[in-house]
Amino acid sequence: VLSVDALVEGVHFDRAFTPPDAIGHRALAVNLSDLAAMGASPRLALVSMALPPALPMADFEGIADGLTALAARHRVQIVGGNLTRSPGPLMIDITVVGTVKRRQALTRAGARAGDKLYVSGTIGAAAAGLRVLRSRTSLVAGRTSEVASGHSRPATSDSRLATGDLRLVTAYLLPQPRVHLGVHLARNRAAAACIDLSDGLADGLHQIAGASGVGVTVDADALPIDPATRSVLEQSGQDPVAAALAGGDDYELLIAVRPRARRRLAARRDSTPLTLIGACTAERGVWLRSDRGVEPIGRDGFSHFR
Amino acid sequence: VLSVDALVEGVHFDRAFTPPDAIGHRALAVNLSDLAAMGASPRLALVSMALPPALPMADFEGIADGLTALAARHRVQIVGGNLTRSPGPLMIDITVVGTVKRRQALTRAGARAGDKLYVSGTIGAAAAGLRVLRSRTSLVAGRTSEVASGHSRPATSDSRLATGDLRLVTAYLLPQPRVHLGVHLARNRAAAACIDLSDGLADGLHQIAGASGVGVTVDADALPIDPATRSVLEQSGQDPVAAALAGGDDYELLIAVRPRARRRLAARRDSTPLTLIGACTAERGVWLRSDRGVEPIGRDGFSHFR
Repeated sequence: VLSVDALVEGVHFDRAFTPPDAIGHRALAVNLSDLAAMGASPRLALVSMALPPALPMADFEGIADGLTALAARHRVQIVGGNLTRSPGPLMIDITVVGTVKRRQALTRAGARAGDKLYVSGTIGAAAAGLRVLRSRTSLVAGRTSEVASGHSRPATSDSRLATGDLRLVTAYLLPQPRVHLGVHLARNRAAAACIDLSDGLADGLHQIAGASGVGVTVDADALPIDPATRSVLEQSGQDPVAAALAGGDDYELLIAVRPRARRRLAARRDSTPLTLIGACTAERGVWLRSDRGVEPIGRDGFSHFR
Repeated sequence: VLSVDALVEGVHFDRAFTPPDAIGHRALAVNLSDLAAMGASPRLALVSMALPPALPMADFEGIADGLTALAARHRVQIVGGNLTRSPGPLMIDITVVGTVKRRQALTRAGARAGDKLYVSGTIGAAAAGLRVLRSRTSLVAGRTSEVASGHSRPATSDSRLATGDLRLVTAYLLPQPRVHLGVHLARNRAAAACIDLSDGLADGLHQIAGASGVGVTVDADALPIDPATRSVLEQSGQDPVAAALAGGDDYELLIAVRPRARRRLAARRDSTPLTLIGACTAERGVWLRSDRGVEPIGRDGFSHFR
């Protein structure tokens, strides 16, 4: 399988609060997440960059470091690339090549009524992390390497990030694509349909529902939104459920599972937590069930809360 | 084989005098030319575009038309892609996948002293065509489709392009990558080394000399520069040989051929003309031989003339 995705400055990231290594990491993570959603093992990557002439050499090296570190972790060989000048924004375009057995490849189109819906990890953490970063731009710009390396050594007390916030910031800056989980799901035929959540959970639900020709219902109370995420989103005046549904940049997988295949989810070495969040239905539509009743989820999220 | 290349507005093309379909055509042609230089048959392409919000829909469609027309001609399947917004220039990044038998793949590194150097088609035509376009921006912007479709029907007499100029403009806007020639050279083991001239003949000579560990000498009088090209370049105050050596955008192939393999060049269905322009030598260096004697060729061209 082949996949291409682009990261464009000013559209997908802001250099003011995205350290260079995080830019490189995220550019590859987007693509690895696409492969994970197909159940494919990543093998090769080609990297094409358009660089503004004013970009400091150290920033370029930082981008390359972030990219190669993630590539090494997943044994992806960077086999080619292209460098050119950009008269505008920094852009990184990556094409990845992965392998999966033809019959095992996961798509969005295999779900049936009665399948259960699971999501990996937690949702909303990246959206919350971005909110933390936006509120502390000057701080983060000053200590790029600390944030990116996952530990914080603030020089002054007012630049301290709470441990919870640091985890959210890391979720945004250094998302971990669910490569092993995707490969496991494909090899064990554990998933009937799969998509990654880089465009948000609401989008993922609509994609699976549309491609599979089913409806889906999600339980608001079941959504894996951790307390730190909930707290940041609430402090910024957002409903956590609405924000977690709409927020992209969670590199998690949304999976539809046949009732009889549920035991295949359990037997895996990969330790990524999976949370049951809802089910597929014969009746069409994408719905959220909460103590307020059942309400439709729009493609961009949950308009009621906005 | 995999290859990626990018076209960036303001760096590789100017929308003021590059019609949309020519932008799409050129974006793919760059990549097909890279494959041709490896002797590979193009199979698949992934297209990633970053588009300014102000781009008219008709221009986007024009780009897609130019791209798909060239893809269809070479039976390349566009199997994926990505569209994103650009806050700056228009960018097109294309990854192509081609196939070639492992032992038949052409590289820059196989030339030996005694090999002859050939170049396909003519050189300098694209550089001359760009010069014509630059001198007539207003004209060309007004009749995009005529230029791009290869025939000129000017509404007014003052916008008329001479037939020779039109050919040069077409060489720049709609370069034809030497796909069939490259595949022939690989299958018949006719080339010891090969490179395409998208970065110019001077660069190509240096690349083959450097990678193969040989020197090269080129005869100025042998260079296939056609009369129309010569005339445009001379009128703009340039030495035609210097401009043809330095000028990029010629999607021709530079080929090193063993003396005993020369007959394999002759027996081909592909009718692309090949011109003997020089030879590889044991003595290092990249040289131009003319009636003024022998002078070094710089990587960016022929500094003496500049």
